[in-house]
Amino acid sequence: MVIDLNSDLGEGYGAYTMGDDEALLDVVTSANIACGFHGGDPVIMRRTCDLAVAHGVRIGAHISYRDLAGFGRREMAVSPAELTAESIYQIGALEGFARAAGDRVRYVKPHGALYHSAASDPAAAEAVVAAMLTFGGLSLLGPADSELARAAEAAGIPFYAEGFADRAYTPEGRLVPRGRAGAVLAAEAALGQAVSIAVDGYAHTVAGDPVRVEVRSLCVHGDSPDAVRMARSIRQSLLDKGVELRSFT
Amino acid sequence: MVIDLNSDLGEGYGAYTMGDDEALLDVVTSANIACGFHGGDPVIMRRTCDLAVAHGVRIGAHISYRDLAGFGRREMAVSPAELTAESIYQIGALEGFARAAGDRVRYVKPHGALYHSAASDPAAAEAVVAAMLTFGGLSLLGPADSELARAAEAAGIPFYAEGFADRAYTPEGRLVPRGRAGAVLAAEAALGQAVSIAVDGYAHTVAGDPVRVEVRSLCVHGDSPDAVRMARSIRQSLLDKGVELRSFT
Amino acid sequence: MVIDLNSDLGEGYGAYTMGDDEALLDVVTSANIACGFHGGDPVIMRRTCDLAVAHGVRIGAHISYRDLAGFGRREMAVSPAELTAESIYQIGALEGFARAAGDRVRYVKPHGALYHSAASDPAAAEAVVAAMLTFGGLSLLGPADSELARAAEAAGIPFYAEGFADRAYTPEGRLVPRGRAGAVLAAEAALGQAVSIAVDGYAHTVAGDPVRVEVRSLCVHGDSPDAVRMARSIRQSLLDKGVELRSFT
Amino acid sequence: MVIDLNSDLGEGYGAYTMGDDEALLDVVTSANIACGFHGGDPVIMRRTCDLAVAHGVRIGAHISYRDLAGFGRREMAVSPAELTAESIYQIGALEGFARAAGDRVRYVKPHGALYHSAASDPAAAEAVVAAMLTFGGLSLLGPADSELARAAEAAGIPFYAEGFADRAYTPEGRLVPRGRAGAVLAAEAALGQAVSIAVDGYAHTVAGDPVRVEVRSLCVHGDSPDAVRMARSIRQSLLDKGVELRSFT
Repeated sequence: MVIDLNSDLGEGYGAYTMGDDEALLDVVTSANIACGFHGGDPVIMRRTCDLAVAHGVRIGAHISYRDLAGFGRREMAVSPAELTAESIYQIGALEGFARAAGDRVRYVKPHGALYHSAASDPAAAEAVVAAMLTFGGLSLLGPADSELARAAEAAGIPFYAEGFADRAYTPEGRLVPRGRAGAVLAAEAALGQAVSIAVDGYAHTVAGDPVRVEVRSLCVHGDSPDAVRMARSIRQSLLDKGVELRSFT
Repeated sequence: MVIDLNSDLGEGYGAYTMGDDEALLDVVTSANIACGFHGGDPVIMRRTCDLAVAHGVRIGAHISYRDLAGFGRREMAVSPAELTAESIYQIGALEGFARAAGDRVRYVKPHGALYHSAASDPAAAEAVVAAMLTFGGLSLLGPADSELARAAEAAGIPFYAEGFADRAYTPEGRLVPRGRAGAVLAAEAALGQAVSIAVDGYAHTVAGDPVRVEVRSLCVHGDSPDAVRMARSIRQSLLDKGVELRSFT
Repeated sequence: MVIDLNSDLGEGYGAYTMGDDEALLDVVTSANIACGFHGGDPVIMRRTCDLAVAHGVRIGAHISYRDLAGFGRREMAVSPAELTAESIYQIGALEGFARAAGDRVRYVKPHGALYHSAASDPAAAEAVVAAMLTFGGLSLLGPADSELARAAEAAGIPFYAEGFADRAYTPEGRLVPRGRAGAVLAAEAALGQAVSIAVDGYAHTVAGDPVRVEVRSLCVHGDSPDAVRMARSIRQSLLDKGVELRSFT
Repeated sequence: MVIDLNSDLGEGYGAYTMGDDEALLDVVTSANIACGFHGGDPVIMRRTCDLAVAHGVRIGAHISYRDLAGFGRREMAVSPAELTAESIYQIGALEGFARAAGDRVRYVKPHGALYHSAASDPAAAEAVVAAMLTFGGLSLLGPADSELARAAEAAGIPFYAEGFADRAYTPEGRLVPRGRAGAVLAAEAALGQAVSIAVDGYAHTVAGDPVRVEVRSLCVHGDSPDAVRMARSIRQSLLDKGVELRSFT
């Protein structure tokens, strides 16, 4: 009964803020820190790494397509060679701040459109993994049963799957796409699913049936006050059930 | 009789090219590689690091203000904290590519407007040096008798001064500003000055008088076919005089 | 007893929000709309122009140095020729959206560091005015007794001065710099000063003495819920005193 | 026997140059001017508009996805609403420079990945056309028999098709994709095809068979000295055959 809580942090840019990073750092055990391509800038990256270390939270590189205007949410036709180079650039930049804070980048989690394309496109997944290999000791966090998982395994890189407390799953254990009826769970159901995933290893379908979901991390959000409250509730619910919150790295 | 030849490399961006990097890598012993802020992109940074290692050329981080539109040549009011963070970001990003190529970033040389502001403004110089301290084993390349030199010395970082074969010096050993009559030397005079700096430690004033200039590196340019020819001639002239070309790191 | 209320609007970017534009559009008579250089993107510019026209609010181009990372607040060494070209670019882009919304860009107000440099540097002021001349019928909004005012007058462009309800003035009628004791007025004093400026043409020094301030517009802010409340209160106080709120264009 | 010659111009950025704009302006009758999204910056846009007017060349907006890093050549998942707004932004910005030069933007030609997506995707084509409608009097230049042609016709916007002297066509009158054997014609064949398209209205297949190609413009390139020479030769060959070179606007 051990699980990690991860969240996207450091996604502001210059004068722009995004989410409540300090609140989230009291909740999570792993911080996916933006590296300047979809959000984040050097000052924010430095501060977020410093805060993560101060809170005992692991630092992960939240790499993205280079698309600040679209917050990394727009699919782009980036070649594998470019994707590898852009990933090395982002991980390397964050590594500088992680070391300045007294730690290291421990893992990589792709963001937004790259998360989706690297989950389903073997060439994109392999391009990300190729970048990770130029560093040492990195783990990969992403969706279970994905091309990312396969590429990591093929390269000998530790892969950890993440789940979602507030999302319904298909009978095959995949996320029901947002926009479908029942795709997003209400607060109480989400709390229940957080516990059932962590304790028993199952989530729920839209119909409410249990479905096997084996993950080492749960992704929580901090982009609204409601989201922060929910993240805190998930943390408390897990602790109440005796689940240990611990990073996968 | 040992000197280093350094040049700015990897300054293209996307579809844009800048200079003849491959030709220069046959000439220099140190490559100031752009880190994406005034020029350079991840693909170019990776290729330039790979080529530098293949040519036995040392990798330096050519850090800049974040100003692609102005090629880093415009002074910007960047606070010291931002400057330190932006420097860590750039050095860290390049370090990823240097490691992927089998080497490390060995030194830092500020670019353009940052070169000038950090040479004369103690706060800017200290901000750059503070970034360097978060990495280990970096040297600093810049103008002699500058705030950069002082900040490096105060921080215990090795500092190396660079000179210019094709520029006249003031009697105090500083560069005559471009635009003044006689500021830029003709080809033959520049070849002579390269040798006199490397062998005897003196350059020339506008009037042609010798002036003491002790530097460990000469900066050569590659931004035009003429510049590349001149760089090759400087290299050959130095070798002909028995000067050893060797990096300072 | 007629005054204009202006505010900076449309300063979000992509996924980032900045201020409560819709609330402000119920308060102001002139909207300084960001043009993509310090904030704003095409989608936001279009929506803000549409909303401004729907609210009967005049559209102004809030032009800036090209510095999204610094939100246009950092002084940059931009040459006059560049500044003119960058201003034409921004005004032209906004003009497309203003026309699509059924109106036109009516005025220009420089933002951030450009506001300050164009207020004090004749070359920068003339560069901005030169850009305005390539369009027809634009007015200029800025600080009284500034180089902007002089450059506009010299070029035959209508200039309108703006004041600040919540800022103390020097005995010479200039703003006391932020950071000095008493520079920013508390809420009640600011409401009083809004009325005294609009009705009687005077503001206050730090010591509380009246000082002559003749302006045609008051600048209000919307970057926090408190700021929006203050803006609403200023509007209501002015209306209560019988002041007519009307754009200067 | 009238045809237009168009070329992509003003594609440099800051310190970066791209192609020989001045040489091309002696060749073409229509200039597709980059608007800052894939290339071009305000200074370059202004100069290119000024030069175009001085050469009697028509100004067209060469609009693109916002992708300087990829030179607009990478497909991006931009929504129709964003695409319309980004197109208005670019056309409006160029219109400012065209007016400053004493003319107006006369037409629009999408660039790179947007050219291809808007040619084949009705939603993208309609989004571009929707932007054009917010301006008055614009024509559209693009590939024959495309969604761009259909969207322009549906909106009542004049559409003009362009052809290529140096590319083989399929028997259906479409371009043979680059990379296929025979897709790019050698210099002599290209000169012949320029004339056959302009005089007789047919191009050639890979096998050398004639195929009907009715276009009002030929696209020529200036991105290398060889390309400029070819563009000059095409112009001269057309003039030698008595073809009149005249813009479609």
